[in-house]
Order: sequence, then structure tokens, then C-alpha cells
Amino acid sequence: MSAYIEPRVLKGFRDYLPAAEIQRKKLIQKLETAFSQFGFVPIDTPVLEYAEILLGKGGGETDKQVYRFKDHGDRDVAMRFDLTVPFARFMAQHVEELYLPFRRYHIAKVWRGENTQRGRYREFMQCDFDIVGTDSASADADIVLTIITALKSLDIGGFTVRVNHRGLFNRFLEHKGLFEKSTAILRIVDKLEKIGVQATKDLLIAESDEKTADDILYFIHPEAGFTETLHKMRALCAAEDSRADEAYQRINTVYAITRKAGLADYIQLDPSITRGLDYYTGIVFETSLSRMPEIGSVCSGGRYNELANLYTDRKLPGVGASVGLDRLIAALDTLDAQKSQQPCPAVLIGALDEQLIADYHALAVELRSHGISVEVYPEVRKLPVQFSFAEKKQIPWMILLDAKALSANELPLKILETRETRNFKSSEELLIFLNEQLASLSKASGRDNG
Amino acid sequence: MSAYIEPRVLKGFRDYLPAAEIQRKKLIQKLETAFSQFGFVPIDTPVLEYAEILLGKGGGETDKQVYRFKDHGDRDVAMRFDLTVPFARFMAQHVEELYLPFRRYHIAKVWRGENTQRGRYREFMQCDFDIVGTDSASADADIVLTIITALKSLDIGGFTVRVNHRGLFNRFLEHKGLFEKSTAILRIVDKLEKIGVQATKDLLIAESDEKTADDILYFIHPEAGFTETLHKMRALCAAEDSRADEAYQRINTVYAITRKAGLADYIQLDPSITRGLDYYTGIVFETSLSRMPEIGSVCSGGRYNELANLYTDRKLPGVGASVGLDRLIAALDTLDAQKSQQPCPAVLIGALDEQLIADYHALAVELRSHGISVEVYPEVRKLPVQFSFAEKKQIPWMILLDAKALSANELPLKILETRETRNFKSSEELLIFLNEQLASLSKASGRDNG
Repeated sequence: MSAYIEPRVLKGFRDYLPAAEIQRKKLIQKLETAFSQFGFVPIDTPVLEYAEILLGKGGGETDKQVYRFKDHGDRDVAMRFDLTVPFARFMAQHVEELYLPFRRYHIAKVWRGENTQRGRYREFMQCDFDIVGTDSASADADIVLTIITALKSLDIGGFTVRVNHRGLFNRFLEHKGLFEKSTAILRIVDKLEKIGVQATKDLLIAESDEKTADDILYFIHPEAGFTETLHKMRALCAAEDSRADEAYQRINTVYAITRKAGLADYIQLDPSITRGLDYYTGIVFETSLSRMPEIGSVCSGGRYNELANLYTDRKLPGVGASVGLDRLIAALDTLDAQKSQQPCPAVLIGALDEQLIADYHALAVELRSHGISVEVYPEVRKLPVQFSFAEKKQIPWMILLDAKALSANELPLKILETRETRNFKSSEELLIFLNEQLASLSKASGRDNG
Repeated sequence: MSAYIEPRVLKGFRDYLPAAEIQRKKLIQKLETAFSQFGFVPIDTPVLEYAEILLGKGGGETDKQVYRFKDHGDRDVAMRFDLTVPFARFMAQHVEELYLPFRRYHIAKVWRGENTQRGRYREFMQCDFDIVGTDSASADADIVLTIITALKSLDIGGFTVRVNHRGLFNRFLEHKGLFEKSTAILRIVDKLEKIGVQATKDLLIAESDEKTADDILYFIHPEAGFTETLHKMRALCAAEDSRADEAYQRINTVYAITRKAGLADYIQLDPSITRGLDYYTGIVFETSLSRMPEIGSVCSGGRYNELANLYTDRKLPGVGASVGLDRLIAALDTLDAQKSQQPCPAVLIGALDEQLIADYHALAVELRSHGISVEVYPEVRKLPVQFSFAEKKQIPWMILLDAKALSANELPLKILETRETRNFKSSEELLIFLNEQLASLSKASGRDNG
């Protein structure tokens, strides 16, 4: 038996090695930049909360996935399984210290003891942003515009935010005398993309009849344009239905806002979008990538009536969305985006002579003061060892300074990709070269934060 | 009985409201920038691990603070209580996929069920950075230079990195015939700053005698300069002691490196620094702020022989440090630093006319495309309500656009601090004004990342 404990992680958990963690951090940073541009501010909440807070007083079947235990004080505690419930508790607790409408984002890990067979992780990161304390077309549109702006900044090609209004669907079902079956029908329609038209129709027939199934399928079929689809949806509700008018008006205003903002090309009205959850009451949306529609929605959400009604009688209507970070990372990997990123570090100073260690660090400090990231190789080793290190860490340039070069005031720079060495006569000259190279990398990565 | 669940967090846990979370994020971003400048790369590890991995096979007394429970598969799991143990496991598991020397940083939450009476939190964030796979003066100096660079970027005034070498202290104690008592003596000396000279002397006398106590106090007293202190320390060890020579040489080289890098003013040789832990074997350091020495060390660490010997026979010597984020945040609060930060958002577009909602969003999109963060107030409310909102969110400027101003091509901007309103004739003119104002804020915050 080995004296060592086998180093391993729990099933459904994973380490992030540097390449993956750098990618995740860059993605998050771009999203945060977009959120800030719209005035969303970050919050954080504890990972552990009272189980009662997270699960409610009932504690139903779905709670089985939650990591729940007794703490040292015998309190019944649980690890958060989403960011919505803690946000609801947060708002109920702090609304007096804050201001309304409150727009926040929260990017943090959550835990669910899910079945790992389907490639699901038990620890994953969620990214939510919401505007609460207002029920307005302006806020609905704000969430849509934020999604568009955030995704544009990621260099993942085209995408479509598909929007719908739960109210119109409900009015239509009511008009058809199907109100009592609406939850079941919404759930079936939500599967359309996964299971196809015929299977959806079969399920709808099982709930009603063939004529009704056809009517529903006609209702959820998008027409050529946003306005045509919207008119059709309204026309299929009762003529005198003020709530249908209201929903129609709401979605029409959201469209007008995105049009005037010059971003209407990114949205589509898709009456088949329902978002399974009972939670949503107004606008709902999903976002698909043009080049990878098969990975599913990378940003979804909608409007809800009541955020915090478990904890307070204060009415907190809101609208929000959740970014699918893991799906976006999968897309970035597949689309080979983020490849021409800034290296970290840009330069490795090789250790050629023990006597020059202090000179290496002094040079590093000088280059860093001009914004270049520099690592000093910490011990004198054979050059192939140091080259191999630089390649594994994907460091593009290496300074090879020995006593001779130092006394000749020369700075030899090895370009690792081509194995070419260039001699610079001063650190100024070297800086000009490095800055040019880094600027062209920056350009190649085509940062489009507009 | 209320139907509502009382919204509250567990004792020892806390929410981060926007102002605090923005401050924490900015601090972390500055530290990450400094780490990247030195070639440190980020990693992440799971919050939950096998209890055996985190606590070892024994599971001693100190483990009582650890949040530990059985998961759904009846596995004995625990939440991480520091970032060092997971890093050790990480290195043992992934060393073949990585490269050595490996320098990483990890900024993440950890949990300890500690007594909360002393104002301690049970959930807090740690920030560690280490270089493993090398035992060299260059790496020791690299950590010291990274600390200096990181702290310089934070605008918290002067600071001193106080360094020492555990080897010299041990050689001195050996020379005095006190080797067996060295752990006890190191622990006493570690308390010097807290309890004062006399109390320290009393404790030392209890371990030895008055003459020995005086000798120890003489040894740990810093002289006027780094070199004088170092010479004295060496002189108080045995004359023929190659290990004392080695330690002397190591610390001397670290000093030479910081001197050549022009940063020696930030370090001081302080023989009283021991860092209580048995873990450290070479250089050790603590960092105190000139303007707030009373909050204690804001960055501490040292060199250790073996990072991962619980999990592998692979030798992984390293050197690293841990930043005290909560202490730094307390210092930033007290020193009123980070006050002249960029506002988020910079501009609020007031909602004056329901008919102009789309115009408000279009203007917001235009300003954002020039890098200005803009929030659109989502519903038409009385102006005082909107002003009060802007003030609570610390938004400095507000655009008040009604139909008249729009048709006259005017953009009225209210400066909330002075209540003055300025009329701009175009968004270009407005952008020039906003960019000037934001640049001067940026300047006032005096970002010094050199």
C-alpha cells in the first residue's frame, strides 16, 4: 500500500488548469465590461445559507440534488444551487439600503449533486443579470440590448436573440379553451427544437386533438418578419382582449427600441420560445449562435412577476437573463476564437549566468514598467530545458543575456516560433519591437467591444 | 406567525453589496495585473474535495473548523479551508501536464467554522501566489518583487516587506544549544510585535534563562541597515557553519537583486520575523503598511521544502505568499483610497417622456460605443425620484431629454453634484465633455502600476 494519498477530485468536479482558467477569466471580464456599460453592478452572497432560505419551508422532490448538511452549531445549511434564490433573499433583506430599480450581475459557482452521466458537472459557474423593481418595456429591452452587446464583444460570430411573450401565448390558449392545459402545452412546445415538429404534434394531439395541435403549431411558427409574426399572434387571440393588447404593445415597444438602437438584426420573434418554467410571466428569450446552433441557448431568461415573495410582501417584478458560460467556452474552443490573445508572460528572460541574476531582474522591472509582462527563469539550466519551458508556457520571446552581451550593451531576443535571434542595442529598441508585435496580436484578436 | 421566511445569512457569513463588491473586484483586478506582469497564471480547484485529501489520513484537532459532511453517494467530503492544500493536490495530480518551475495565483473563497466572536468570518477570500519546482534566490526575490509591485499598484501609501531567513535563526539557536527548543522559541519571538519586548523576554526566560533571553532579543533586534543586520546575524552563529553561510548567501543575493531592481527601499531585514508555522524552511516575510501598521501584515509567506509530500514522492520545493484581502480592504476604506474611481454608470438618461423611450436607448447605445457607461431609467417617474436614484447609485451626470430638447437637437446634461445643467449641441460635444471629466477622475485616482 502506498504511503501517499491518491491526488484526485470528486466525480463531477474539475480543476481549471491555467489555459482554461485564463480563458474563463477573459470571458468573464468581457461580460463584466458589457454589464458595466449598462450600469449593472456586481454583488456577492454566501455559498452556504440556511437550508430553509434556499429550499423554502416545504423542501420538495427537486431538492435531492442540493448539498445539505448540519454545521457545527447543528444548523440545517445548504450550498447554493443557483443565483436566483440567493438574489431573492438578498433583495428582501437589503431593499431599504439599496435603490430601485436595482440592476445587478452575479457571476459565481453553484453546486448540484446531479447525475454526471450526461456530462453534467456538480460544480459550475452561473452568470445572471437582472433589473428588479420595474415592469416596463424599457427594462425588457435593456436586458435584450445587454445580451446583444455582451455577445458582440466575444468574437463568436453571428447570433440571434429569439424573443417571445408568455402573455400572448396564454391569451391564445385561453381563446382556444385550453387555459387549463397551458402548462402542459408550454412544456411540449418548449421541446420543439429538440424533438422536431412531428413528435411535438403527436404530444399535442395526446393533450387535445389534431385540429388543435395544428392550430398550436401554426401559432408558434415564425413568419418572415418580426412584425408579421407579431400581427399573426395577436390575430389568433380574441379580438377584444385587453391583456393580449397589452402583451402585443409591450413586445412591439421592445422591438421599436432595438430598431432605433440599430440592433434589430440581432432579434427575432419566435412564438415557440416558452422557457419551461412557470416563473416567467412576460417577455422570454433564448439566444442561439449562428455557427453553432446545436449547442443550444447561450443566454436565456425573461420577465417574472415576483422575485422575493417567499421572504417579503414587497412587490419586486423583474426581468433578467442567465449566460451559459460553459456553452460559450465550448463555442470559443470550437470556433477557435480567443486564440490570438496576449501571451502571459510576453517575455522570458533566460538564466544563463548565476552572476547576472540581479541584472535579469533589473531588466524585467524595466520592461514591466513599460507594460510588458516578463518572467525571469529562476535558475541556470541548460538552454534546451529553458526553451522547452518557454514553449510549454507559450511564451513567444526569450531574452538570452550573457556577460558578453551585457558588456557589449546588447539584448539578444530569441523568437521562439521561428528560432530566429535578433540583437537589440537598447531596451528602448527592444520595447518598440515588442510593443509592435503585441499590438498586432491585439489587432488580430479583433476586439470588438462596440 | 408570518408567512414569510426571514431573509438572513448565517452567522459569520455576509453579503457583498455593490459598493463593497466593486471595491473587492477592483482590488483583485489590480493584484491580478501585477501577478500577470510577473508571469503568474491563474488556476482554479473545486470547493468540495474528498475529506481525506484536504485533511490527510489522520484528521487532527485543528480539523474541527472544517465544514465536512457525507454527500449523496455517502462520500466523506469537505469544503476547502485554505488554498495551499488544494494546490498541493493539484500539483501532485497535474505536474506531468504542466511545466516546472510553475508559478500560479489563486484567488478564491475558503471556509472555516471559526469562532466569530473576534470578528472573524467563516467565509472569506484568500489570494495566494507561489513558484514551485525551484529552490533559488531568484525565485525568492521574485516573490518579494511581486509583493512590492502589487502593493505599489494599490495606492495605499508606503509599506515595508520585512524579510528574514529561518535557517539563520535555527543556526543561531543551534549554536546556543537551544535547537530542541527552537519551535517554542520561534513561536514566542513571533509574538514580539503583539506583546512587546518585556513580555517576550519573560516568556523566553521561562524557556531558558535571562542571559539566553537577552542573547535572543539581541539577535532579533534589527540594526540600522540590511547589511549590518545580516552581518550581525551571521556573526552570532558558529564561525564554521556551512549552512549558516548558505542562508547568509541566499538572503544577501535576494537583497542584491532588489537593490539592482531599484526596489530595496521597500525591504527590511527583520530577524524577529519567524512566521509561526513549521512549514517554512528558508526566507520568510511579512508586509506592513506605513500608515496603518496596526492592522498587521497584509502579505506574508516564505519558502517551504515540500509542497505535495502527502500525495507524491516528487520533490516540489517552493516559495509563495498570501495577500490579506480583508486587511487591504480595511486599509483602503480607512485611507479613503479608491474614492475617485470611475463611476458605474457614468451617465443616467432620465425617462421624461414615454414616447422617447426608444430615443433614450438609441442615445445610450451611441454613448456606449464611445466607451461611456450609460443606464436608461426604465420608466417615466417624477424627476425628484430619478434624481434621488442617481444620487443613491452615485451617478454623476444625468441627461434630461424631452421632446422639445430633442426637436431642438439639444442634449441637456445635469451635473448632479452642483445641480447645474449644461446644454450640448451634439453627442460629439457631450462626449468631449464626458471624456475630459472621466480622464480627470482617472488621473485623480493616481493609478501607479509602474
